[in-house]
Amino acid sequence: MTLGPLEEELAKARAAYRNRGRWGEADVLGTLNFIDDAIRAHAAGLVRRGRSFSLAQGFDGLGDRTSTRWDGLGRGHDNKYAWHGGSRAVTDGDSVTGIEHLRDAFTGRGVLLDVGRAVGDARGELPDGYPISEEHLRDAVEAQGATSSVRRGDIVLVRTGQLGRVRRLGAWEGYASGDAPGLSFATLGWLHRTEIAAVATDTWGLEVRPSGFAEPAAEPLHRIAVPHLGLPLGELWDLEALAEDCAADGVYEFLLVAAPLPGTGAVGTPVNPIAVK
Amino acid sequence: MTLGPLEEELAKARAAYRNRGRWGEADVLGTLNFIDDAIRAHAAGLVRRGRSFSLAQGFDGLGDRTSTRWDGLGRGHDNKYAWHGGSRAVTDGDSVTGIEHLRDAFTGRGVLLDVGRAVGDARGELPDGYPISEEHLRDAVEAQGATSSVRRGDIVLVRTGQLGRVRRLGAWEGYASGDAPGLSFATLGWLHRTEIAAVATDTWGLEVRPSGFAEPAAEPLHRIAVPHLGLPLGELWDLEALAEDCAADGVYEFLLVAAPLPGTGAVGTPVNPIAVK
Amino acid sequence: MTLGPLEEELAKARAAYRNRGRWGEADVLGTLNFIDDAIRAHAAGLVRRGRSFSLAQGFDGLGDRTSTRWDGLGRGHDNKYAWHGGSRAVTDGDSVTGIEHLRDAFTGRGVLLDVGRAVGDARGELPDGYPISEEHLRDAVEAQGATSSVRRGDIVLVRTGQLGRVRRLGAWEGYASGDAPGLSFATLGWLHRTEIAAVATDTWGLEVRPSGFAEPAAEPLHRIAVPHLGLPLGELWDLEALAEDCAADGVYEFLLVAAPLPGTGAVGTPVNPIAVK
Amino acid sequence: MTLGPLEEELAKARAAYRNRGRWGEADVLGTLNFIDDAIRAHAAGLVRRGRSFSLAQGFDGLGDRTSTRWDGLGRGHDNKYAWHGGSRAVTDGDSVTGIEHLRDAFTGRGVLLDVGRAVGDARGELPDGYPISEEHLRDAVEAQGATSSVRRGDIVLVRTGQLGRVRRLGAWEGYASGDAPGLSFATLGWLHRTEIAAVATDTWGLEVRPSGFAEPAAEPLHRIAVPHLGLPLGELWDLEALAEDCAADGVYEFLLVAAPLPGTGAVGTPVNPIAVK
Repeated sequence: MTLGPLEEELAKARAAYRNRGRWGEADVLGTLNFIDDAIRAHAAGLVRRGRSFSLAQGFDGLGDRTSTRWDGLGRGHDNKYAWHGGSRAVTDGDSVTGIEHLRDAFTGRGVLLDVGRAVGDARGELPDGYPISEEHLRDAVEAQGATSSVRRGDIVLVRTGQLGRVRRLGAWEGYASGDAPGLSFATLGWLHRTEIAAVATDTWGLEVRPSGFAEPAAEPLHRIAVPHLGLPLGELWDLEALAEDCAADGVYEFLLVAAPLPGTGAVGTPVNPIAVK
Repeated sequence: MTLGPLEEELAKARAAYRNRGRWGEADVLGTLNFIDDAIRAHAAGLVRRGRSFSLAQGFDGLGDRTSTRWDGLGRGHDNKYAWHGGSRAVTDGDSVTGIEHLRDAFTGRGVLLDVGRAVGDARGELPDGYPISEEHLRDAVEAQGATSSVRRGDIVLVRTGQLGRVRRLGAWEGYASGDAPGLSFATLGWLHRTEIAAVATDTWGLEVRPSGFAEPAAEPLHRIAVPHLGLPLGELWDLEALAEDCAADGVYEFLLVAAPLPGTGAVGTPVNPIAVK
Repeated sequence: MTLGPLEEELAKARAAYRNRGRWGEADVLGTLNFIDDAIRAHAAGLVRRGRSFSLAQGFDGLGDRTSTRWDGLGRGHDNKYAWHGGSRAVTDGDSVTGIEHLRDAFTGRGVLLDVGRAVGDARGELPDGYPISEEHLRDAVEAQGATSSVRRGDIVLVRTGQLGRVRRLGAWEGYASGDAPGLSFATLGWLHRTEIAAVATDTWGLEVRPSGFAEPAAEPLHRIAVPHLGLPLGELWDLEALAEDCAADGVYEFLLVAAPLPGTGAVGTPVNPIAVK
Repeated sequence: MTLGPLEEELAKARAAYRNRGRWGEADVLGTLNFIDDAIRAHAAGLVRRGRSFSLAQGFDGLGDRTSTRWDGLGRGHDNKYAWHGGSRAVTDGDSVTGIEHLRDAFTGRGVLLDVGRAVGDARGELPDGYPISEEHLRDAVEAQGATSSVRRGDIVLVRTGQLGRVRRLGAWEGYASGDAPGLSFATLGWLHRTEIAAVATDTWGLEVRPSGFAEPAAEPLHRIAVPHLGLPLGELWDLEALAEDCAADGVYEFLLVAAPLPGTGAVGTPVNPIAVK
């Protein structure tokens, strides 16, 4: 998987993976439009044992830069592009596509793709800087079996194992600001084609760092995924206990309710996601 | 329903409605112990249409004193009593029974008791200061029919209609600090006897204000419900759309996932509760 | 001091104490307009010893309903009136007079009026429900001496002693929701006539609770002070250490820097106020 | 300025720039110990015109990963080292050196070192990845003149101009997560030797990114500055208006009051810093 020059790849991706306009000019839901009542009813039917998993890391409120979160459709800019038109500053809030519009939207079928276990080391961990490719995602689906087939409207959880390693070693330096395994820019085609509703992971930035481009590139996957695909991105989720349970019972699908705090105009928000199996 | 002298009523209630010690000295879950996997699995089975309702009011972050919330087991003091022993200040946080222990606990069967519609005015609203009695709760169950029978482990949502009235009139003065309809102190027996897991409502304080005692009484129901029953209390929930839907289809039970942000040591926390029918 | 019927008193106060329009239709500063560079320079000159006092109570982030705070010009509604026109909901944020406009405005001369010590009990505390009148404020000035004369543009800190009592007794029930000593509705004339820039206190609501009106009255002083006077109100400040120091050295004036977090559109905000003597 | 192998440089810095133990084992203030009453009184005397500058960027509350902030003494780990002993997770809070201990400590003399104007381009901006060296800091002092000499106990504000550029271009991608100009690891000697109390800047991470080491290095300056020097670090400050004013009147020193919200156990906290000239 080789990436060409940054601006060239961005231009190709903008053209190829564009959902803007797909649901009308005034749309505020993006790919969450793929979830409907039938999908939610089906997802509730996946609950068998009644076990509830919180996928949130601890919050210390004012404490640090980060928390388990959703990035909404105002987070991830591409120069003059944003999901709902107009460029705006990270720190300005989002008066059009603020996270409050998504308050009831993140209820559906969750699927865990444990890439760390499928292609990582014996502990199920990927090293920092490891780029997850489309093939790796398919490898995980295949290794995990039928319950992890990815369908339209799914909320896909990609486990890299970084959080597990950091916790095991107590090596928190850089966990919220440094290099990390994550989705390669080259997975944008898969993210677009599968028509998933959202994707989340256990690292601070979701995409691989460094980015794999020869040039400095600030969050290139965000730049396409959010303003052009309209795909909400979840970060800093704690998938460790859920992944262990899925490995034990071989079931990688579940009801997921990941309701964001509806901060008016917020471009992202803390969340305590709940998976029920 | 006449209340005797405050200290006398408090003393009786402390003796009669005590759950402290029931689940061991080190317990951090309180009445959430009543929810088990079987209850959660059953609750997921209540989902038919797949419709998702957010029960959160808007959040403006730093904006005001209030938000849709859970009070945890460190909120609601009774002089020297707290659920987990020791008295502590409201502003100190809770190093023993902090809300982080409840991160996956609020998943179960939700039941709406629309007291506003059952015993209120033509708009389904109770006036400020209206004390909801045990009989009113039973009236609501009876009026609503079989789907609203209250069982052990339920999360009960009591609608007063105050939020609907305030929103209709734009009369927000006092909504977060003034008189309100709510549960009378005399409902503590019902809250204890039914073995419900939690209770939430659409006002800022859950209990009726003024309290109905002749003496000044600061949150007398909180003083018993939290430290002695171990009952988490939800406030400022938006039950309007859900109540309308329940009135329309006659189904008052649903899957409820109301996962609090797990702020370490927090005595309460914002929440975006999701009901799925 | 006898208060007439609520609506009558409100009508009189609206007419008598109106600053709206005084600084133009587009004003977002209210009485903070009274502070100018000369006042700030003078205030810095009040620093002698170089001792710094934090007037904030502890914050536990997600922990509770409350924190040391400023209410901005969008907090405190009077039916259809707000400082900047239009009625709006408490929970909606404030797109016109949001607290971000006040980010550098709370720097000036602070004056402590220790009413608890001047007219309270031997411990310097007022009982809950004690209405502070204009005369009490003047009594405090007189008792304290020359450094506490109140001037145009001052930020006035009124100590009731309630926080000291609550802390001393560990009696936190009701501190953030119950009866409290505080400014009587009848002090609105003084608040208006003195042309102070802001007023803050050590209780959760600033004004006395109950309000002293025969009818139920939700925050009647807020209803006039914020939308009609344009006066920012501070609540839950910790004045104990500062008050002790002032009592010891007899100096009740100081530089006050009480910079609110500039939450975009927030109607109120946490603050860590710093007094320097 | 060439940096040797990472572990070697870290080992040298740990030995050379260690303040731990300097103020006793139980110290919670770190280099803030350098500020005393005399310094604060002197700083208040620097106020001439009475102009107040807020150095905070806008806050949208729940909105994003970032805000104008202080990192306290629990932020910045070095494997098993922390300022107050013991290693701990970023997300766990800090029960020993939590930010609440610093609530009144950030009041003193502020000095702006406008490195962007001193050694940057015609707009006074440094490019991303530009490492600020000790010499650049001295260049700025020399260019600015007598009011910017750095003394023990100062709070030093280093302007890179990155925020100005990002705002000018609307190019917010990466501002809170990508490459940035900033302090080189090699400035640790200067930070230690000058005995300043704290340092803050207009980028998201304070130190230069990439770090200048051949190996991947997560926040190497943080790893020494916080746990070994005990130096609080400020990030995402808005220095633009202040810098313009300093350039205009040639005065680069001022009273700085930058009081952090005292979140109990927080390892960092939002702040609205106020400079008064």
